[in-house]
Amino acid sequence: MTEPFDAVDVIRAKRDGGEVPEAALRWMIDAYTRGYVADAQMSAFAMAVLLRGMTREEIRVMTDAMIASGERMSFAGLGKRTADKHSTGGVGDKITLPLAPLVAAFGVAVPQLSGRGLGHTGGTLDKLESIPGWRAALSNDELMAQLRDVGAVICAAGAGLAPADKKLYALRDVTGTVEAIPLIASSIMSKKIAEGTEALVLDVKFGSGAFMKDPAAARELARTMVALGEDSGVRTTALLTDMSTPLGLAIGNANEVRESVEVLAGGGPADVVELTVALAREMLALAGLPDADPAAALADGRAMDAWRAMIAAQGGDPDAALPAPRETHTVTAARDGVVSRLDAYTFGVAAWRLGAGRARAEDPVVHAAGIDLHAKPGDRVAAGQPLFTLGADDASRFARAIEALEGAYEIAAEAPEPRPLIAERIAA
Amino acid sequence: MTEPFDAVDVIRAKRDGGEVPEAALRWMIDAYTRGYVADAQMSAFAMAVLLRGMTREEIRVMTDAMIASGERMSFAGLGKRTADKHSTGGVGDKITLPLAPLVAAFGVAVPQLSGRGLGHTGGTLDKLESIPGWRAALSNDELMAQLRDVGAVICAAGAGLAPADKKLYALRDVTGTVEAIPLIASSIMSKKIAEGTEALVLDVKFGSGAFMKDPAAARELARTMVALGEDSGVRTTALLTDMSTPLGLAIGNANEVRESVEVLAGGGPADVVELTVALAREMLALAGLPDADPAAALADGRAMDAWRAMIAAQGGDPDAALPAPRETHTVTAARDGVVSRLDAYTFGVAAWRLGAGRARAEDPVVHAAGIDLHAKPGDRVAAGQPLFTLGADDASRFARAIEALEGAYEIAAEAPEPRPLIAERIAA
Repeated sequence: MTEPFDAVDVIRAKRDGGEVPEAALRWMIDAYTRGYVADAQMSAFAMAVLLRGMTREEIRVMTDAMIASGERMSFAGLGKRTADKHSTGGVGDKITLPLAPLVAAFGVAVPQLSGRGLGHTGGTLDKLESIPGWRAALSNDELMAQLRDVGAVICAAGAGLAPADKKLYALRDVTGTVEAIPLIASSIMSKKIAEGTEALVLDVKFGSGAFMKDPAAARELARTMVALGEDSGVRTTALLTDMSTPLGLAIGNANEVRESVEVLAGGGPADVVELTVALAREMLALAGLPDADPAAALADGRAMDAWRAMIAAQGGDPDAALPAPRETHTVTAARDGVVSRLDAYTFGVAAWRLGAGRARAEDPVVHAAGIDLHAKPGDRVAAGQPLFTLGADDASRFARAIEALEGAYEIAAEAPEPRPLIAERIAA
Repeated sequence: MTEPFDAVDVIRAKRDGGEVPEAALRWMIDAYTRGYVADAQMSAFAMAVLLRGMTREEIRVMTDAMIASGERMSFAGLGKRTADKHSTGGVGDKITLPLAPLVAAFGVAVPQLSGRGLGHTGGTLDKLESIPGWRAALSNDELMAQLRDVGAVICAAGAGLAPADKKLYALRDVTGTVEAIPLIASSIMSKKIAEGTEALVLDVKFGSGAFMKDPAAARELARTMVALGEDSGVRTTALLTDMSTPLGLAIGNANEVRESVEVLAGGGPADVVELTVALAREMLALAGLPDADPAAALADGRAMDAWRAMIAAQGGDPDAALPAPRETHTVTAARDGVVSRLDAYTFGVAAWRLGAGRARAEDPVVHAAGIDLHAKPGDRVAAGQPLFTLGADDASRFARAIEALEGAYEIAAEAPEPRPLIAERIAA
């Protein structure tokens, strides 16, 4: 078969600042997925995109081409509204766990196809696998049945969704082309759109623990993805949220599940509750329920019932004891004062070094490993009072984690200026 | 062995507009040559270089690293001054053929390691291979002996010179990263410096038949290469020359040898003579002979003697008949007037289609194929007078060549504004 385009022409068009015509861009993605366009050509193209940008229309076409590279799911036969949420990833970010059953408690189906953690941010599936018996892999039929019967599903994304994105993401990771907003946006959105949700809420984070540290870059990414969702027929909004300090008090896997259950029981840390409720409101509003009261569903046990049903449907025992670390090490305050800083990135790295995260995709995680905070920025502490507790399966892990945390937190005389967790709401 | 750097860090540094530290850049080139850095990483780096540029120091380091990837020749034991010339390539550019023996006639050794043609520009070795018996491949010992005994050598560059450049050039060709001035400059100069010449004159062309069409880009390339030569201890100057119309009257292989012999016999087209003499003056001046008179050596037969010795030393018969095309087709003037335009690029493409050039490196060339011009811009012609003659081994080649030449030449009422062939001289 003769190829209708030439990769060098496509690369040059973008390199020279032009807009790549729709047919050529679709061909480029398709031919790359087929292996006709080489990795070396796609990485040069990705670098040109990173440095030259893409128009909104190019991003739409690229995303659509990545969706077209694989299967596309549909929940049209479900008889329920669907809404999903995506977070760009943070430290202590367990929000999906209480959020999916909370929204499902209102009769909205939540098909949350998730991933595993890599580097300093955890993965939703890793966290849930702390629960004895729970399994991440569902067939499409099982997924559909659970959405119908329970409403909430958190499971592994099938390999069939946007295979072009999988291939391109692995390439970007080794070629210094991860940080291109058009490529990040199309990567995230191609999977979410292929998944078939009708509505999507994005939690786009900024600050040290976030992928995009700079608020302005995070805002641009959020706007790009909201436009892309709307252009592709998915009702989309985004919250821009602060990830300069960890979310909640638990960083790890089993301890994050424990904290999520506290929230579902009507308690839990204020910041986790605030963000869970805000994201639930967005999802419910996009699903046609603007007056739903998610805080009430946390308080009265409806969200907890949905959680128990969701965990049980995937083989998990919601009443089983969660694994606890074999070894712990508590760090105490050196002086009286107020916690003025507690850096998200560094605590994420420390939890990773304790075994909660992985450096390579094939590594296992230690479910019981992680960090429990006893104080957050703004909390007053006395000298000798516990600040945080490290947990690991092996005490030899503590030294490197403690080393990483050197200078990552401060106790000052005065309380820091409070920072809003939710900085901005972005809609089309 | 642990690698001291990470390719992604090097790519990111350049991508973000920074200067890559010397050790990291040397490592990048070395690790790419070894195969540790992947093609996809190097092409992303090349695109970042194309869009972000490189400092003079980075270009020097990169060139030096490419030289270090292979063998480096030395003519120190020769007892003669050495001078070489490089042209960025043009249509009808046979200047190396008369130039090398002309300079050698003054006792300066000319180690001209050349390549083959690709696309619309011809290759010096392809031209010389029209001569029965002549061979391009010499051992290093043969090269050295010929430089000592004859003074001039035009032969194939050994595979041992700058292998990093060979690998990188093949990659750039398929990834839209050819046009980066730092990469072009380091590619050309790494081979010339590794070759071991003491002095180098660059013929940097602009205009339709040149690789760099834009004079400003050609000037920047020339300045970059002159600086690079000087930084690397090679005395280097450049002439910026007009390649908007073919050089001389012959475009092909055997016919270009014929025209070169005319120049060596004291005749030949004025533009070929002008450029040959100008480049010879530059080379001789750099070799310490600023007062040498190359025009006299063309007139009195000294250059021809050196040519005959050079051809004979490589097995060629300087008196042998050169191949002539089996089929010819002459195009005549449709009206009276003055030739006002004759486009170099298009005539180069037409000669290529006739069989004089190759589309892929492994293709053969037809030595007798090509185009002989009977008039050049500024020449007055009468209706019906021959303008140019196409030559090929097979008459079926004419249709596509004639089609290519559609609109490539014009006859006007008035003579065009004469354009200087040598636009500028660039020295350190």
